[in-house]
Amino acid sequence: MLRTHHCGELNIGNAGQNVKLCGWVAKRRDLGSLTFVDLRDRYGITQLSFNETSNPEVLEIVGKLGREFVIQAEGKVTERSNKNLKMPTGEIEIVVEKLTILNMSLTPPFTIEEETDGGEDIRMQYRYLDLRRDNVRRNLMLRHQLAKHVRQYLDGQEFIEVETPVLIKSTPEGARDFVVPSRMNSGQFYALPQSPQTFKQLLMVSGFDRYYQIVKCFRDEDLRADRQPEFTQIDCEMSFIEQEDILNLFEGMIQHLFKEVKGLDIGTLPRMTYEEAMHKYGNDKPDIRFGMEFQYLKPLTEGRNFNVFDTAPCVLAICAPGCGNYTRKQLDELTEWVKRPQIGAKGLIYMFCNADGTYKSSVDKFYTQDDLEKWAKLCGAEKGDLVLVLSGETRTVQKQMSELRLEMGQRLGYRDKNNFKALWVLDFPLLEQDEETKKWHAMHHPFTSPKSEDMDKLETDPGAIRANAYDMVINGVEVGGGSIRIHNKELQGRMFKVLGFTDEEARSQFGFLMNAFEYGAPPHGGLAFGFDRLCSLFGGSDGIRDFMAFPKNNQGRDVMIDAPSAISEQQLGELNIKLRG
Amino acid sequence: MLRTHHCGELNIGNAGQNVKLCGWVAKRRDLGSLTFVDLRDRYGITQLSFNETSNPEVLEIVGKLGREFVIQAEGKVTERSNKNLKMPTGEIEIVVEKLTILNMSLTPPFTIEEETDGGEDIRMQYRYLDLRRDNVRRNLMLRHQLAKHVRQYLDGQEFIEVETPVLIKSTPEGARDFVVPSRMNSGQFYALPQSPQTFKQLLMVSGFDRYYQIVKCFRDEDLRADRQPEFTQIDCEMSFIEQEDILNLFEGMIQHLFKEVKGLDIGTLPRMTYEEAMHKYGNDKPDIRFGMEFQYLKPLTEGRNFNVFDTAPCVLAICAPGCGNYTRKQLDELTEWVKRPQIGAKGLIYMFCNADGTYKSSVDKFYTQDDLEKWAKLCGAEKGDLVLVLSGETRTVQKQMSELRLEMGQRLGYRDKNNFKALWVLDFPLLEQDEETKKWHAMHHPFTSPKSEDMDKLETDPGAIRANAYDMVINGVEVGGGSIRIHNKELQGRMFKVLGFTDEEARSQFGFLMNAFEYGAPPHGGLAFGFDRLCSLFGGSDGIRDFMAFPKNNQGRDVMIDAPSAISEQQLGELNIKLRG
Repeated sequence: MLRTHHCGELNIGNAGQNVKLCGWVAKRRDLGSLTFVDLRDRYGITQLSFNETSNPEVLEIVGKLGREFVIQAEGKVTERSNKNLKMPTGEIEIVVEKLTILNMSLTPPFTIEEETDGGEDIRMQYRYLDLRRDNVRRNLMLRHQLAKHVRQYLDGQEFIEVETPVLIKSTPEGARDFVVPSRMNSGQFYALPQSPQTFKQLLMVSGFDRYYQIVKCFRDEDLRADRQPEFTQIDCEMSFIEQEDILNLFEGMIQHLFKEVKGLDIGTLPRMTYEEAMHKYGNDKPDIRFGMEFQYLKPLTEGRNFNVFDTAPCVLAICAPGCGNYTRKQLDELTEWVKRPQIGAKGLIYMFCNADGTYKSSVDKFYTQDDLEKWAKLCGAEKGDLVLVLSGETRTVQKQMSELRLEMGQRLGYRDKNNFKALWVLDFPLLEQDEETKKWHAMHHPFTSPKSEDMDKLETDPGAIRANAYDMVINGVEVGGGSIRIHNKELQGRMFKVLGFTDEEARSQFGFLMNAFEYGAPPHGGLAFGFDRLCSLFGGSDGIRDFMAFPKNNQGRDVMIDAPSAISEQQLGELNIKLRG
Repeated sequence: MLRTHHCGELNIGNAGQNVKLCGWVAKRRDLGSLTFVDLRDRYGITQLSFNETSNPEVLEIVGKLGREFVIQAEGKVTERSNKNLKMPTGEIEIVVEKLTILNMSLTPPFTIEEETDGGEDIRMQYRYLDLRRDNVRRNLMLRHQLAKHVRQYLDGQEFIEVETPVLIKSTPEGARDFVVPSRMNSGQFYALPQSPQTFKQLLMVSGFDRYYQIVKCFRDEDLRADRQPEFTQIDCEMSFIEQEDILNLFEGMIQHLFKEVKGLDIGTLPRMTYEEAMHKYGNDKPDIRFGMEFQYLKPLTEGRNFNVFDTAPCVLAICAPGCGNYTRKQLDELTEWVKRPQIGAKGLIYMFCNADGTYKSSVDKFYTQDDLEKWAKLCGAEKGDLVLVLSGETRTVQKQMSELRLEMGQRLGYRDKNNFKALWVLDFPLLEQDEETKKWHAMHHPFTSPKSEDMDKLETDPGAIRANAYDMVINGVEVGGGSIRIHNKELQGRMFKVLGFTDEEARSQFGFLMNAFEYGAPPHGGLAFGFDRLCSLFGGSDGIRDFMAFPKNNQGRDVMIDAPSAISEQQLGELNIKLRG
């Protein structure tokens, strides 16, 4: 071992010991006769000290040290005169007697500090240096901790981790697959899995009873800010259970993670149906760190000749507490905000609840103080509050209001990243209709079971069927979701029919699963968590990239290794493919 | 929960309890007025019992039960009159009061038993049924246990698991890559990693200090019996260490695994240089469960006019204990065995050590009893033993004799699968020469460091350089291997030059790694274990397939899901590729 200790562990109790440390030069300070070097490794920083009495050879080497040089220092642990009690090693320094340069370093293209001067592009190109920054490394250590405690919890619940294959079969359903040409099977392709869905169901047919896997999945989609072509799931499945069992078991898991990793007790998860979530928050992943629930004003607005409200099926209000002092300018800016194409509202109606008990609104022409008082009451608005109103088609205005609610919550500081509120959203619709083609699509996936009480609507009123499907939502982010699966071949067949698969399509794509269901498939269900997102949530970040060691950019490129890249004509030939012109 | 207990836990202590069990019908026995059903799940088998006093509805259902039906049974735990003490649940049975068929099953195409009547092909096609067999499921549970204890050990040693990317860059070096056409980067391809080698080295440059990952790797090679296109590695890397530290740490890991998973103390691992392994066993992965070490007879054979020996640079002997009673037929058969093309020996010389102290050999014409006695002495052969002799070019005859030694060890029962002997093989040659092209290849990989004392031979005598490289070998199987890496850019450059890379080739293939080495790379090294092979070794099996949930066949096909398969013209078009004629 080139060291006796690492850079995060020595303290006053070690004073007098001779030690050997290795690490990177984070900083060198020359104070005339004194020189200090901050030596950094994964575990921390320890101060090395040099003075006039140091060995001249050592002093010569110190003089050569640049940032990020890799060194080995031998010396005595000594109490510091100038202590830094904020650092675990801040009471000591190493008076260095022997110094070796293990490797030199060019000057890094950006500073290796939490607040770096490097932009995104350069940091991605030199990701190996970016990863030296404390905050980035902490993110990956957090990821390791989370994975460890997920496994610990699931192992304790008799789950078995089973690896499912990465080279599988392409299915045209859903998102686009990445494919892999097969050399040995000319003209044929493997696909990379978008999830191990069918394999985990097969494992249930096999009697594995409780399966999990922390597993890479792949989707060849156009990338948005928070999407990556390869991502990681915590994938789980159980047999002989009902929805309630799954909710309880994975509620236990998330409680375990918060407790072990963040020392937090997040309590019991509230449950909310999809309909309730849409009704109260206009969103199937509501952020319940704050209230500002939707109020439906329509009945209070009718018969006053305000055409906008009279012609709208839905008039929605939220109360923004303490915003009664908003200026004209602020309201105009908010109005512009909701009118942006991303939100798409036609306008914004507001009402101030004045300190003197009166109301001032943008629709005073149509509504009396009495009317407005009723609005205020319904919204729970008090003196000094601002009521914001949108109107239109119900689903549309719910979505617009959801955005406005989240924005106001953000502005009001209600969305503290260190405050965690988790819930279950239940009873999702089984199917959704494509507005153009009028075709029905599975909202979750085609193996999701309908609620038994809605089953008879499968052929008659598909849109009204609720599924045995559930999502776990934390702070407005869907972290996981799943369903009780269909385990019956006939029902699966009906489902495929509703989804517009011909028998042949169903057989060619899912034949092996349907065959498997003929040989004693147990009742089963499961769910999957987006592990990258879970990590970023625990880390208090919005993006997933900084929780991946080597993420790709929005063009799906790894700019550090320069992938993807051209391959040789010979390779193409062996795979029996060629490029199009 | 559809059950109160699983099928492996009820015993006499539960007698009198009302319970609910779920599982598969393993067997139904109708004994006139009595019927028994063996109910199976992952955890075990519990006997259900039915008799004339049972509810008629229940009896009607029992009559319908076929093999592999999925059922739920409610009833009372009752002491059996006819106990089976070999089973954990063998003292009780469930007197069933309520019975529900959860799913029916067609008759499986083979029996779901350890000794099944199904051949390999049918079992692979119905892998989900094959996985119901106790032995196959036990293999995957063993795999889970091994993974768990690997993580437990490495976590305890401050290793961090970091996920490295699956979509990386193709490198023409080494084995063939699987490639993935990029839709967003037209005409370009990702490659699937053959190992995370460069990424783990970059993580060391990043200061991660101790990394591991249990990770899928991919190789597009023509498949031999024990190869799979996707396989799993335990991949590890450490900084600021020397070879000795790595040997100690991973010796600790394998001891931990044997202790925790098999309850065995395998003791300290002996160490052997590559040269010694070749000299004694003709093999760089010697099976040291037994002796039969090579003896070099050449000096004892000269000057007797036996041309075969006189013209051979090497005359090798092993002693097969107790084989002095081999018949002529057995010897002929053994001679044919060594003459097969896979072994390639020209012939086999033998010598019996007779009970009366005389010797009988196939070369009695040339050698006296005195000569033969000297041979026997050198080989440690005693009365009743058989000495087997091969001759030829040193490396060739070493390899032939290695095969013969292993074969004889097998025949003599020395290769007990439940006896585990692990060792380290050290000091591998850095380079090996292609006999045809005379080009030098890295024996391990191009990042392996030469021993410092051999460094000056890099350009003058490359074949004589030993590497800081090590393999862990158990029972004649290489389970892991690694090296201390080059962390210095100049040395890496010299290495690439010896390997015949032009500067440009080196830069285009490994540029990012060589760049990284300019920014403070620490001394580092590591190793990787073949996880599938480790599992099969622990499971006492020769093959890795039964330790994978969904393996592929020798053509790289998954016959269950029928992958790889053709993809649509539209998919090909989006990827900007087409098939060749």
